[in-house]
Amino acid sequence: MKRLDDWFYTPAAQVNLDAQQAALARQAQLTKPHGALGRLEDLAIQLAGLQGTVTPSVKRVRIVIFAADHGIAADNVSAFPQEVTAQMVANMARGGAAISVLARALGAGIELIVLGSVVPIASDPRIRSEIIAPSTANFTQKAAMTDAQLRTALAVGRAAVARARGGGTQLFIGGEMGIGNTTAAAALACAYLNADPAQLVGPGTGIDSERLAHKRQLVAQALELHHHQFKDPFATLMCLGGFEIAAMTGAYIACAHSRLAILVDGFISTAAALAAQRLCPGIEHWMFAAHSSAEPGHRAMTDALGLTPLLDLGMRLGEGSGAALAVPILRHACLLQSEMATFAEAGVADGQ
Amino acid sequence: MKRLDDWFYTPAAQVNLDAQQAALARQAQLTKPHGALGRLEDLAIQLAGLQGTVTPSVKRVRIVIFAADHGIAADNVSAFPQEVTAQMVANMARGGAAISVLARALGAGIELIVLGSVVPIASDPRIRSEIIAPSTANFTQKAAMTDAQLRTALAVGRAAVARARGGGTQLFIGGEMGIGNTTAAAALACAYLNADPAQLVGPGTGIDSERLAHKRQLVAQALELHHHQFKDPFATLMCLGGFEIAAMTGAYIACAHSRLAILVDGFISTAAALAAQRLCPGIEHWMFAAHSSAEPGHRAMTDALGLTPLLDLGMRLGEGSGAALAVPILRHACLLQSEMATFAEAGVADGQ
Repeated sequence: MKRLDDWFYTPAAQVNLDAQQAALARQAQLTKPHGALGRLEDLAIQLAGLQGTVTPSVKRVRIVIFAADHGIAADNVSAFPQEVTAQMVANMARGGAAISVLARALGAGIELIVLGSVVPIASDPRIRSEIIAPSTANFTQKAAMTDAQLRTALAVGRAAVARARGGGTQLFIGGEMGIGNTTAAAALACAYLNADPAQLVGPGTGIDSERLAHKRQLVAQALELHHHQFKDPFATLMCLGGFEIAAMTGAYIACAHSRLAILVDGFISTAAALAAQRLCPGIEHWMFAAHSSAEPGHRAMTDALGLTPLLDLGMRLGEGSGAALAVPILRHACLLQSEMATFAEAGVADGQ
Repeated sequence: MKRLDDWFYTPAAQVNLDAQQAALARQAQLTKPHGALGRLEDLAIQLAGLQGTVTPSVKRVRIVIFAADHGIAADNVSAFPQEVTAQMVANMARGGAAISVLARALGAGIELIVLGSVVPIASDPRIRSEIIAPSTANFTQKAAMTDAQLRTALAVGRAAVARARGGGTQLFIGGEMGIGNTTAAAALACAYLNADPAQLVGPGTGIDSERLAHKRQLVAQALELHHHQFKDPFATLMCLGGFEIAAMTGAYIACAHSRLAILVDGFISTAAALAAQRLCPGIEHWMFAAHSSAEPGHRAMTDALGLTPLLDLGMRLGEGSGAALAVPILRHACLLQSEMATFAEAGVADGQ
């Protein structure tokens, strides 16, 4: 049931234009040729606008991993068996996954939230259980979620951001784990962008061309079944999304409401960002795109959001790993903005 | 006088292929889909080959800034007056330049070496004086350096690497400062690549189209004057280079002799890398290209070296700043290689 007073329809907070203007003025005084720091200057200026200060900081980073299983996995769309979702969450908790290594290196906080698993999740204080159901429904047959399940998933994301905010987080990263979720993300991309599965469905974790053709056919079937819902962004997410994708959507929206900068990871995260943008206008101003995913549909989504990825390293892992790689760029942009000497301070002659 | 037994003609050390192979095998066992870390996997494997270990590290980074003035600056090729070279070195020593901020953030050692300055360099224990002459000669009139000056500059770079090696450095970054040096670098690029100044000469720190046309014309004039020397890479560097460019060339060659990985910065540094590659075959295997410079001639040089830049952020500052920005990518590639769990360790099912 669509209720336009639901929290997730509230538009994003306004950016602080005075702080942005002050940051721009400071950039022109720093001891370097004008514009010589390229995109680092733009990043510092954008962050100044988001944080409302001429010297922004992204020292305190919070990475929240949302994990869930997908009904579509029954249709053999992934190179990995479905129990890998739970196994990888356990690996993250023990510190052995890529995102664990990166979070440690960055000194970033990490929270693991499971919203659905077809196998039992080990009881572990490092894993937060917010189980909605073992998995979503297979979206080639019916809507992936019920209205109530989607609301719950969005709220799980919102609550994660409230906890992050309480801990003083300055930059939010959502990561995900869910066997089958590139299929769900591709279906969402096709629905929101009115695009053809042949363009936007890719090999995910690595499947051969025969299974890729099968995956495209499944997405086409799902689009055919649900297309009458695609005028409504909430219903689209309900029909095609996953619990972890919806939780990330809710988290992003909560960030844009509570003035917290968002660093968007790769293909799955960008599908969640696109859903968030259709629900919450203006949210794209609170986002940075971390990297270009190797997944072919990614570019169409970042273009639609007006975001230009910072890195292009051929990554396609998920977990928030590409976003973690981009954190030092944002941090260095902030440090340069706040710590470089001005021409006057340094006694250096300015350019002609 | 060309003597082929000169130290800088010795080919680069061989890469350790066993370590490279072992690193490749380890990548396949880590808990991620095969290839999902994209270029990070290639970086870890290449570094394994350079350092001769399956778990390489670039924790200890050394940044050496070479500064010098240029005779060509008399012809009004830069947006900044020539005394800015010395002023910026002082700013670096006080910690106010972009590279100072980045070196601090990375915990990297930094050494400042001045090889030529038209104004006196303040006596400062943080600045190493290796003055060859106030500046090079104006290469539109004669060779920029004498044979002896070039040999001295190359040796200054070599000695800097010996000091870095003594301190346990695992990754070498050369940076530069020198008003007028994009003109020298562009002239070298044209000579080594047999290219047209219209293609490779760009705006440097920022000049208008009229002065850019003038800069192109000066490079064309220099190429015309010295072209009979261009079959000899040493003589080419002598005719068109700068003291700081030649010192960086010598430093790079010393790295490739002493098994030290090199992270090449932007336009000027890549011209030095190209000179090094013409003198010291195989050196390109010891190099990583940090970023795509906004300077138009940069791409032609990285292509000629067979290097693909890691970042593309529109930077054009020099000082080693683009290389500093890329350090976390190399560090994270190493950490993932050594700290991620394997499928067996984590009890995660491998892909089909």
